[in-house]
Amino acid sequence: MGKIGILGTGVVGSTIGIKLIELGYEVKMGSRIPKNEKALAWAKSLGEKASVGTFESAASFGSIIFNCTKGEAALDVLKSLSTASIENKVLIDISNPLDFSKGMPPSLYPSLSNTNSLGEEIQKALPHTKIVKTLNIVSAGTMVNPGNIQGEPSMFICGNDGAAKSETVKLLTQFGWKDIIDLGDITAARGIEMLLPVWIRTMQLMGNGNFAFKVLR
Amino acid sequence: MGKIGILGTGVVGSTIGIKLIELGYEVKMGSRIPKNEKALAWAKSLGEKASVGTFESAASFGSIIFNCTKGEAALDVLKSLSTASIENKVLIDISNPLDFSKGMPPSLYPSLSNTNSLGEEIQKALPHTKIVKTLNIVSAGTMVNPGNIQGEPSMFICGNDGAAKSETVKLLTQFGWKDIIDLGDITAARGIEMLLPVWIRTMQLMGNGNFAFKVLR
Repeated sequence: MGKIGILGTGVVGSTIGIKLIELGYEVKMGSRIPKNEKALAWAKSLGEKASVGTFESAASFGSIIFNCTKGEAALDVLKSLSTASIENKVLIDISNPLDFSKGMPPSLYPSLSNTNSLGEEIQKALPHTKIVKTLNIVSAGTMVNPGNIQGEPSMFICGNDGAAKSETVKLLTQFGWKDIIDLGDITAARGIEMLLPVWIRTMQLMGNGNFAFKVLR
Repeated sequence: MGKIGILGTGVVGSTIGIKLIELGYEVKMGSRIPKNEKALAWAKSLGEKASVGTFESAASFGSIIFNCTKGEAALDVLKSLSTASIENKVLIDISNPLDFSKGMPPSLYPSLSNTNSLGEEIQKALPHTKIVKTLNIVSAGTMVNPGNIQGEPSMFICGNDGAAKSETVKLLTQFGWKDIIDLGDITAARGIEMLLPVWIRTMQLMGNGNFAFKVLR
């Protein structure tokens, strides 16, 4: 199996990393410093297929990269990577441009929504990397186990490169996703990221994130 | 049965009007001029329960009012109404703040999205009217016949007045909606209106509007 780099040590990064290792991938989790405590604890329980390093070393390690950083940090982290570490690779972007500065519930950064998106801005910043936007509209647990939601939820995907989307669909299928909807080029990230406000209101209403959207048709 | 005023003579207004008359309501369809040709043609086939008039007379007529105007016109139309015609009434707002000025697909008006919404702006403009946002996330045919979509689609609703939402839920139930999700006060209109961009991309992909969202949980 292949090697995958994960950027970010939060719940999303660690959950996806565990699933990828279960599936047989080698995974390096990257953070700002070489020996992040959360990353080390994560790797310790997972055996030799799990390793840790800087963002740069995790990106270099992976033939595919997951961006699991927070939306407010994503562009800074990704712009700090060397071209060699990311050139021609598939980067699966799960981040959301959530702006918590105005209180709860968060809004989206105005410069990264509506007529733009974080997915597009990342694609512009990394023109030689193939950005695919997906998974950002469900909780971490559901990302890697959609079967925990009855009724076969839908997962949107978008990006400019067809082969990169095919590789991503293969991974999503391994995660258990059966209803994957390709909305086209990376500009569709606008709509996909704009699902977050209603997701958050629904989460506040239900008191948990154990739900997902389905496009009935 | 009661009297309902419909503002707007487009597909949404005429479809909802037909359904309300089927259900036994008296309906007056309002437009800028007293005898709009589309409105007259609509009323002609529907018998004595259907009538036409100005926005003002349709609003005065109804004990409940449906705002089915285009997003770009909604605020102007609603601000033009006399207080007497709308005071203490329920206004069900189906409009979307779609900005077609930058081409297709439309974005949302920046001043009416993300940290604001058309629903909220209408509530601010009409402080003595009870605004309820709903139905804006499906095609006109599905608004009044959700059973045409397999799997029991979800319909979001929000507004500041509980009794107004209860009245709206009764109407939605008469339309056939079974899974109605109350997201809280009118600020939830932000998220509900922000579903439009992904709705439009999905519609472009599918080539029709015969789909709807479901919150699986």
